[in-house]
Amino acid sequence: MATAPNLDAMFKPRSIALVGASGEATKLSGRPLRFLLQYGYQGKIYPVNPRYEEVAGLKCYPSLAAVPDEIDLAVIALPAAAVPAALKECAAKGVKAATVFSAGFAEVGEEGRKLQEEIRDIALAGGIALDGPNCAGLLSVREKVFATFNTAMERGAPLEGPVAFVSQSGALGTYMFAAAQDAGVGFNYWVSTGNEAVLGFADYVSYFVEEESTRVIMAYMEDARDGEALKACALKALEAGKPLIVLKVGTSEAGARAATSHTGALAGSDKVYGAVFHQYGIIRANDVEELFDLATICTAPRWPRGRGVALMTISGGAGILMCDRCEETGLEVAKLSPETVEALRQVLPPFASAVNPVDVTAELVARPGLLKRSMEIVLADPAVDSLVIFLGLQLATGAGLAQDIAEVAEASEKTVVVNWMAPPPEALAILREKKIPVFPDPARGVRALAGLVKYLERRQRYLARRAAGKEGHRGAEVGGERQAKAREIMARARQAGRKALTEAEAKTILELYGIPTPRRRLAESAAAAAAAAEELGFPVVMKIASPDITHKTEAGGVRLGIKSAAEAAAAFEEILSRAKAYNPQAALAGVLVEEMVTGGLEVMVGAKQDARFGPVVTFGLGGVFVEVLRDYALRVAPLEEEEVLAMLREIKGYPLLAGYRGGEARDVAALARIILAVGELAAELREDLVELDINPLLVMPEGGGVKAVDALMVV
Amino acid sequence: MATAPNLDAMFKPRSIALVGASGEATKLSGRPLRFLLQYGYQGKIYPVNPRYEEVAGLKCYPSLAAVPDEIDLAVIALPAAAVPAALKECAAKGVKAATVFSAGFAEVGEEGRKLQEEIRDIALAGGIALDGPNCAGLLSVREKVFATFNTAMERGAPLEGPVAFVSQSGALGTYMFAAAQDAGVGFNYWVSTGNEAVLGFADYVSYFVEEESTRVIMAYMEDARDGEALKACALKALEAGKPLIVLKVGTSEAGARAATSHTGALAGSDKVYGAVFHQYGIIRANDVEELFDLATICTAPRWPRGRGVALMTISGGAGILMCDRCEETGLEVAKLSPETVEALRQVLPPFASAVNPVDVTAELVARPGLLKRSMEIVLADPAVDSLVIFLGLQLATGAGLAQDIAEVAEASEKTVVVNWMAPPPEALAILREKKIPVFPDPARGVRALAGLVKYLERRQRYLARRAAGKEGHRGAEVGGERQAKAREIMARARQAGRKALTEAEAKTILELYGIPTPRRRLAESAAAAAAAAEELGFPVVMKIASPDITHKTEAGGVRLGIKSAAEAAAAFEEILSRAKAYNPQAALAGVLVEEMVTGGLEVMVGAKQDARFGPVVTFGLGGVFVEVLRDYALRVAPLEEEEVLAMLREIKGYPLLAGYRGGEARDVAALARIILAVGELAAELREDLVELDINPLLVMPEGGGVKAVDALMVV
Repeated sequence: MATAPNLDAMFKPRSIALVGASGEATKLSGRPLRFLLQYGYQGKIYPVNPRYEEVAGLKCYPSLAAVPDEIDLAVIALPAAAVPAALKECAAKGVKAATVFSAGFAEVGEEGRKLQEEIRDIALAGGIALDGPNCAGLLSVREKVFATFNTAMERGAPLEGPVAFVSQSGALGTYMFAAAQDAGVGFNYWVSTGNEAVLGFADYVSYFVEEESTRVIMAYMEDARDGEALKACALKALEAGKPLIVLKVGTSEAGARAATSHTGALAGSDKVYGAVFHQYGIIRANDVEELFDLATICTAPRWPRGRGVALMTISGGAGILMCDRCEETGLEVAKLSPETVEALRQVLPPFASAVNPVDVTAELVARPGLLKRSMEIVLADPAVDSLVIFLGLQLATGAGLAQDIAEVAEASEKTVVVNWMAPPPEALAILREKKIPVFPDPARGVRALAGLVKYLERRQRYLARRAAGKEGHRGAEVGGERQAKAREIMARARQAGRKALTEAEAKTILELYGIPTPRRRLAESAAAAAAAAEELGFPVVMKIASPDITHKTEAGGVRLGIKSAAEAAAAFEEILSRAKAYNPQAALAGVLVEEMVTGGLEVMVGAKQDARFGPVVTFGLGGVFVEVLRDYALRVAPLEEEEVLAMLREIKGYPLLAGYRGGEARDVAALARIILAVGELAAELREDLVELDINPLLVMPEGGGVKAVDALMVV
Repeated sequence: MATAPNLDAMFKPRSIALVGASGEATKLSGRPLRFLLQYGYQGKIYPVNPRYEEVAGLKCYPSLAAVPDEIDLAVIALPAAAVPAALKECAAKGVKAATVFSAGFAEVGEEGRKLQEEIRDIALAGGIALDGPNCAGLLSVREKVFATFNTAMERGAPLEGPVAFVSQSGALGTYMFAAAQDAGVGFNYWVSTGNEAVLGFADYVSYFVEEESTRVIMAYMEDARDGEALKACALKALEAGKPLIVLKVGTSEAGARAATSHTGALAGSDKVYGAVFHQYGIIRANDVEELFDLATICTAPRWPRGRGVALMTISGGAGILMCDRCEETGLEVAKLSPETVEALRQVLPPFASAVNPVDVTAELVARPGLLKRSMEIVLADPAVDSLVIFLGLQLATGAGLAQDIAEVAEASEKTVVVNWMAPPPEALAILREKKIPVFPDPARGVRALAGLVKYLERRQRYLARRAAGKEGHRGAEVGGERQAKAREIMARARQAGRKALTEAEAKTILELYGIPTPRRRLAESAAAAAAAAEELGFPVVMKIASPDITHKTEAGGVRLGIKSAAEAAAAFEEILSRAKAYNPQAALAGVLVEEMVTGGLEVMVGAKQDARFGPVVTFGLGGVFVEVLRDYALRVAPLEEEEVLAMLREIKGYPLLAGYRGGEARDVAALARIILAVGELAAELREDLVELDINPLLVMPEGGGVKAVDALMVV
């Protein structure tokens, strides 16, 4: 595991210099000082501005050098052009961390980009942990550090809690900070990352994984920028059991275009992000509200041990709705034991439902203790991992019910979640005070719980793999001889000015990686073709061998099911003459004679390189399944076996592999090995390989292996 | 169009009797009176209860008969057993409408069901419009009628607006009423339908379609109960342009089970509900929050004319997120004209984005009028149908910005939607006051807008069809000779104790409905089989003809590609002997000899009967497409052509029909005619037909028609 940068000087500074500070409290340059004073920062504050002697009652210094103290954090609110000099002053003074609000860097074009490189170099040389530029700064609710112009602070003191928030947008990050607090999410830290000249998204995440008050990290992302760093910090968070919840935008083409024009960089395919999040245990939020809900559930004092959910409701309708959401999100509406049902019947009114969803009815208002007792009974059932309660209104009795819920929840080792529509404010306050996750409608608590349960299952699998020593090689490249040989073949093709390898070259590389291909001979004459066919055994397939013809079928360059030597000889001539007609300029190496493989299920396995995350492996059934139905699975390499098996099961056409309606089961184990091998190939050859498409790969019945019948490789 | 029941006496009563009224203000029986007095109901109130002389300062009458006035609405809060007598009193007194709170009817079993029938009969005989029993009553915010124990009223006077709310749950309906009001939805009427002994869901909807203050109808549904009535009221609402927005629960198996145990009835398949909603222009909300959001957008003063959306944002990140949601939901991020972009550049700061999404940046706070001017420019662009604005916080300037937005919106004919995160309360109040739809995050306004746009497109298509006279036959059955003949065949099979028709019988019925089948002969001997084959022309297909063998292939009873008379004769013997071995008891009618049809794309067309909505038609590609990939479309009959074409396009495998990758286009027109015919068949024979499965139906290349190769019909 990579060690995180130590950002204590940034997030827990003992002294703060405000460079460019102004007394205009509503201006960007005046807000940090106002917030620091208003909310009682305990360290030293040093305004620095040659234009003033005093700012907001504090002595103001003409320069950093004039400050008679060590400085942990400098807040820089100056025009872009003045930033390099200010940072040089910081370096000279030994300032440990800085945040630069100023815009006018990489986001405005070439000149800004150069200015950004300049400040990056100054910061790196001076050992300054740099946030920004072009950012809204950072804050610590715990240490009352407000090195930010985040206007959410104008609504009053922020709510403290165990969630750290990393945002790649200053404005949206500010609004989300405010709205999340309204939704009950308490923060310890918040940071706006800006242009990430020095510190990047993953650096902050890594720091918060190690920071002890942080239990959950939530983030807003537009572009991972450094894919490897994201993967590393995500694994670190997974290992530590601190959920990393990310709202990543640019999921659509229109959105990705807008993101590109906003950030100036192509962020890579969203589908690849999806795969990375899945493989590296990042919880993906699809919307702002879901981000808050996931943060809320993750801060629950107790996490569920499994998928079993008991639903308890004051309204039958809400019970149905919660069932719907459980099934939709993969939670299990637990089957309560006969003992539980009987015990419930003893306490519930006769018209209530004692099976799951348990409908306690409005009787719960009239009979104090009914909810409490029902909760205890249900929580004692071994099939129940979590209890989700639905309530609405209850102006008069709400506070009492909230107390009861909190008491039972605290005494239980299981997770208790509350969905409360239009709750009385006192009830809401009690539940939040007691750290019970509470949501405003019947669906949201269920969905959030499902997100947490899936995260925990993923983590469990990760830890099990790690314990079995299967996680060590992740990210490591094996390399060695096969890599060298493959590179040599690719280099030769490039030297010849070719982007696509010939089929024979591609298959040779596949074999280097243990991917079986049909036996074959290159024939340069009709006689040689006939002899090769005899040797391979009939039937054979014959294909044109030319570096210049990649669409062999279109060129009339493929003949299947050749059954005799005479037929093979005739096919040789025919294929060559068609190829010449198709492309008179094409260099023709001859005709490839191959054993004909039949009886396999056609699948395709491919690889390509993503701008952010490098090697990507795709898998799907052949033909219309991928091309028309878009039924395929995608992962980033390196892969491991469990993930490959999940990939296979993920496609809708999986029953065809597993043996559908008594059809033969296919050699799934061999297929999985080949997908793993393609992952290794794509990772080892990532410098050279643009695209690989094995299509079709034939998967034989169980035990029969697979064969790569055709392959296209672009370098 | 069916006329709606006149429910004015219920929702706009001039006098209300409270039967079983009590002075205990927090009790179910005391709440209506308290609410009526508290919120100033203007009509006459008559408490009726022999136990009191006076209730809450009003004279209390010993019986309805003693009330010296006509009574429009009676609120009945008595034990179930006392309800029949009370209703008889109502009838005697000429009371026009009543709502019965009392539980203990059909929801508690057989005895309750009888009691419910009793009160239904009394109400029908007495001409009483009856709400309930087992309901929470009803209310009118406009007329200050509170014939309900809905506790949302305890939070203060409800917000008035043009939305009528029909709820099949009393408790959840109450909480939703409260939460919707918190989300800014204003109501005119609210009704809890209870057990629907007399008035049903559709009656209320029909009434609100005709009620003039109502512009939008929102509803919570567990079970349509009367499918035909739902369809009729939905069409009526569509015609009137009053959006009917329904949250229907029980979408999952677990949820449906919970609903059954809650309501005591199987509500029919949720997928069928989805089809009905789609075909009859009901807007489906998937969650409580979405229900509120759709109600909010539908009350916007101006509806969009098309899909083009301009996005305007204070945060680049929120712009990306809104783009994502537009693309996801089928809205178009409008391409602004060069003139618009140029005009924007003139007013926006240089670092802002003048293309869509328009990023006005935080400069909007510093420069009064910037937002207003930018809005005007964008709204003038012809590609823009709606403008969605994103803002966050703005404690100091929010009210002014809200004013600006409201002014521009009022002056424009286009739709303006605001997504405002953590808005200052004054700003929110101004926007709501001015009827600007406002949502708390960047995504929700976009999703709601997409729902409205799709609804308007559906309505447009409906009105166009209606204008073209194509909507008249909906619901009408053609019947006639073919229906009679088909019924005769089915009756014969039933008389013989068979549930499945033979293939020949099924195909004869298909032909009656104009569905082509292969030419065929029934052969009762090997010689007859040979002769039939000669006559039909080779190759032929031969199949066992037995009313007792439905799985013909499994029984070894099918032979394809028979090329000579001798082969046909041999096949006859073989098929018969295999059939005898498979089922010695089976009655064998002989062997069916059919022309062999080849070259068609295999599809399946089916029909079945739904518990609520009757005839349902399904369509999909053959084999794995339906069975493994679940790629099929479903509609309720009767169908019309446009809907059938939409059905074809809906499946993911549609490119295979349309001609994929230069493959031949199939005879889609003929296929559509056949699906229409299956719809007619299913509707005309709904009394007799349980299930029809034409599988495969072969679809020939364009102009070549279709052939029903195999068909199973269950009666």
